[in-house]
Amino acid sequence: MIHPQQPSPMPVGKYVPFHEQIRVDLPDRTWPDKVMQAAPRWCAVDLRDGNQALIDPMSPERKLRMFQLLVAMGYKEIEVGFPSASQTDYDFVRQLIEGGHIPDDVTIQVLTQCRDHLIERTYDALRGARQAIVHFYNSTSVLQRKVVFGLDQDGIVDIALQGARLCKKLEETLPDTDIYYEYSPESYTGTELEFAARVCNEVIEVLDPTPDHKMIINLPATVEMATPNVYADSIEWMSRHLDRRESVVLSLHPHNDRGSGVAAAELGYLAGADRIEGCLFGNGERTGNVCLVTLGMNMVSQGIDPQIDFSDMAGIRSVVEHCNQLPVHERHPYGGDLVFTAFSGSHQDAIKKGFDWMDRESASSGKGIDELVWGVPYLPIDPHDIGRSYEAVVRVNSQSGKGGVAYILKSERGLDLPRRLQMEFSAVVQARTDAQGGEVSPAQLWEVFEDEYLPAERRWGRFALKGVRTDDEGEGGRGTWSFRIDDRGVEQVLTGSGNGPIAAFVDALGAYGVDVRVLDYAEHAMSAGGDARAASYVECAVGERVLWGIGLHENILRASIEAVVSAVNRAER
Amino acid sequence: MIHPQQPSPMPVGKYVPFHEQIRVDLPDRTWPDKVMQAAPRWCAVDLRDGNQALIDPMSPERKLRMFQLLVAMGYKEIEVGFPSASQTDYDFVRQLIEGGHIPDDVTIQVLTQCRDHLIERTYDALRGARQAIVHFYNSTSVLQRKVVFGLDQDGIVDIALQGARLCKKLEETLPDTDIYYEYSPESYTGTELEFAARVCNEVIEVLDPTPDHKMIINLPATVEMATPNVYADSIEWMSRHLDRRESVVLSLHPHNDRGSGVAAAELGYLAGADRIEGCLFGNGERTGNVCLVTLGMNMVSQGIDPQIDFSDMAGIRSVVEHCNQLPVHERHPYGGDLVFTAFSGSHQDAIKKGFDWMDRESASSGKGIDELVWGVPYLPIDPHDIGRSYEAVVRVNSQSGKGGVAYILKSERGLDLPRRLQMEFSAVVQARTDAQGGEVSPAQLWEVFEDEYLPAERRWGRFALKGVRTDDEGEGGRGTWSFRIDDRGVEQVLTGSGNGPIAAFVDALGAYGVDVRVLDYAEHAMSAGGDARAASYVECAVGERVLWGIGLHENILRASIEAVVSAVNRAER
Repeated sequence: MIHPQQPSPMPVGKYVPFHEQIRVDLPDRTWPDKVMQAAPRWCAVDLRDGNQALIDPMSPERKLRMFQLLVAMGYKEIEVGFPSASQTDYDFVRQLIEGGHIPDDVTIQVLTQCRDHLIERTYDALRGARQAIVHFYNSTSVLQRKVVFGLDQDGIVDIALQGARLCKKLEETLPDTDIYYEYSPESYTGTELEFAARVCNEVIEVLDPTPDHKMIINLPATVEMATPNVYADSIEWMSRHLDRRESVVLSLHPHNDRGSGVAAAELGYLAGADRIEGCLFGNGERTGNVCLVTLGMNMVSQGIDPQIDFSDMAGIRSVVEHCNQLPVHERHPYGGDLVFTAFSGSHQDAIKKGFDWMDRESASSGKGIDELVWGVPYLPIDPHDIGRSYEAVVRVNSQSGKGGVAYILKSERGLDLPRRLQMEFSAVVQARTDAQGGEVSPAQLWEVFEDEYLPAERRWGRFALKGVRTDDEGEGGRGTWSFRIDDRGVEQVLTGSGNGPIAAFVDALGAYGVDVRVLDYAEHAMSAGGDARAASYVECAVGERVLWGIGLHENILRASIEAVVSAVNRAER
Repeated sequence: MIHPQQPSPMPVGKYVPFHEQIRVDLPDRTWPDKVMQAAPRWCAVDLRDGNQALIDPMSPERKLRMFQLLVAMGYKEIEVGFPSASQTDYDFVRQLIEGGHIPDDVTIQVLTQCRDHLIERTYDALRGARQAIVHFYNSTSVLQRKVVFGLDQDGIVDIALQGARLCKKLEETLPDTDIYYEYSPESYTGTELEFAARVCNEVIEVLDPTPDHKMIINLPATVEMATPNVYADSIEWMSRHLDRRESVVLSLHPHNDRGSGVAAAELGYLAGADRIEGCLFGNGERTGNVCLVTLGMNMVSQGIDPQIDFSDMAGIRSVVEHCNQLPVHERHPYGGDLVFTAFSGSHQDAIKKGFDWMDRESASSGKGIDELVWGVPYLPIDPHDIGRSYEAVVRVNSQSGKGGVAYILKSERGLDLPRRLQMEFSAVVQARTDAQGGEVSPAQLWEVFEDEYLPAERRWGRFALKGVRTDDEGEGGRGTWSFRIDDRGVEQVLTGSGNGPIAAFVDALGAYGVDVRVLDYAEHAMSAGGDARAASYVECAVGERVLWGIGLHENILRASIEAVVSAVNRAER
């Protein structure tokens, strides 16, 4: 096959590849050989970076709900605002402190630019807090130095150091607050690594952290500018070049401009970071921050405790959607409506077999499903773990096959259809979905099923069974039976004999002029207990046609005779 | 800071880490040292994988629109359906072929499971096509072998080879169609690499591709199971272990269960793949396939031609949303509503300075903006490249500062506010947004601005200027001026002298009992041409207060006097 793709009109000449902008050179990188072992320190920035990116920033009520959600989930470091930038943020920090909303083991973090009056107002906002992280930043990138600040590297370092010195000095105004620091060389991804290391190390020198009282160096992908392996290389490089590494918590803050925020966080964590900042469901400036839900649940799927509770995913999502006034997308990992749903036939089939296999394993080992190693195709995690039912896992439309149909009838109605019956019925469903389009809900599926096999109230069908009687089962199980039936409104009594009631009924029908042979037969109780109904499935040859009939009845004898009636009626429909 | 995160109740014990399931061992990997140079071969699977995952699968009309969109964008390989699985898909393939919808340089691709009757029906569907890719697959993973097929490795290889042989045989039924093959060891990410290589190599042996007539080996991350570097390692391993590599097109098909589909595609491409399958805006089973828009635009941002035309992003998105009946999320890279929007003050400020810098570069170099290297902070690409205006780039709410306000007044109204005036006015805006919440539209911003500085129709304000007259400018520019003003409804004529009209007006006001000093002054034409209006900005000390006034007038003299009137009126408001 030739490769016929043609040049596009996209104006690519105006963009310089990342590797020609910033040199990241680490041929002896070690991170690709590492695997994750434990959760990082998390910092949720929903109330700051997330809030700054909302069309309608959170009201105090929404802010408090978000804060309480984050605390309840287990986040211990929460960036609560940019108090020097807006009165609303300032007031919210005061509300948290004065209202006693901050648990002892939770540390609030506040952001400020490296400017004297903003830093001063930030310290004002923190009065009375038990502990706090003061997060100060200035932009260090090549681009911002040129077009925003018009400063050289020394000028940028001066801004950072002046901020650091003022912070140190203002500590004395808050004698009762345990102050920690975070410094971000903002737009880090557009900064030469040597310069990023220089400015961080000079700030570290001024702030003088210790292993017992560390400071945080946060390296934001303010704009995601390259593939995530390059970010990881840069993080490993920085981790090697930061002074007093034992006194520094190395933090990541990935954005998602290239759609790789999750990967950048994970590979950067492998590369030596200790801490990750992000937002629930990836809120944040532009394309958002890295999604804390995805990162946490990715850990769960690898058997690592994220130290965050995601078990009520629907509740989490509902608070986040309320606070952000932005929806969670249908395909958002772990949280979206469709992410555990299979419409396609082969997937549904495999999922059904996976659940069956788990059931058998559970039965044979005596363990509950939750104690087994999870193994269902196409479901990376057990939806139950985050409070989702299995109902939405399999949904039926024109792309579905027997697996989905069988799964729904089993999970919703307790019917365990034989394989050839699954195929027969799924063709019925598919003819309908091909013609009408759209999804078939479990209720609609049941309607189709009832209409096809179980014409309640006799909406259609030549025969209806009225009664069954046997006078004499006889020895060896062979006996004579009589069947009271309604044939197009006229009651008849048919008599036949055979090895059991089905054989006798077939015999009686033959004598009555209806040619039926039973090819296959299956039966099961529909649920446990004395009043359980039985389901009978009979595959019949009726004249030239082969088709299934189904009978559901409290009486197992009636269920099986009705299954034959169902097949005969379908043949004559 | 101690690390107070606590164990969560998540049932992590039921999950086995990926590296304990599948061994991917490639310490001599080379991909992390590579960079992208050119576009891969793309294959759009929106009409198959995407369609299979929709609540309401596409109607024939929606299918055709999607196909035509993909063709128009430049995709040359398009998977159009699973014709053996549904009548709708079969009919659509026939419609494409019989309706002559397939351009000569576009190859349709159809998917089929490795089962005889399905393969046969697939070939039926292709009758009359000029060329086609028959894409057949069977599941090869450890999990599916165990719970779905109950087969060992040999049994799985047999299924693949039987399919391959039947395909070869059926070629003779389509003598006028140039048939190419794609084989997918489905659920590849859950398959031991050695076994994946074995089954692929045995299929290659049967299909006997050549460098002139290659076949495609597609390695799907059917479920994304590990970090993307592990997928990339596995791709490089496979690329080394596939037979007849020169006759094989190595293809990727990443899903997004861990939110890293884009990274998996990009790192896998660095690792030696030739081709990538995906969907526009990441539609597809569960969390979706890798997003072709993000991949393509990521290339653009690195100066690489994706060979796909994304210049009408709004049009692309509108067709996709119509066909899929699913929204594109506000934060979806490149396509979402908010991905180029800055609300926060510091971002807006930097963006404004970036645009100003681009303007100056353009002016000094004589080049158009589009010919310059793009460099605006927080905007990874120029929104114009994909047909988006700059209007939505900067939006104002309580998180915004002077930069955003100034940007909007400049871009929407042609007003270039001096820096201290920007600060003054943004405080006015922020007081309003802090109190009322929500976003301020450009129209609302203008209303606030007019009310503050330009009380049209004299809704408020002590003074209004009625006329200006000078009898004698005198030598040296010092002269006497008279100003006809309305003072609370009473017309007055004030006279003053000074070095120019502003000084004379200040002198006249002083004599009238109004104490004003001019501290700063700026003026510019608002647009080119003879009827252009002038904008004057005057910073005044009025009594104890320092504040700005603004005048807009066709007459530059009137504009400057009205600016002083505006300042005085504001002081007395």
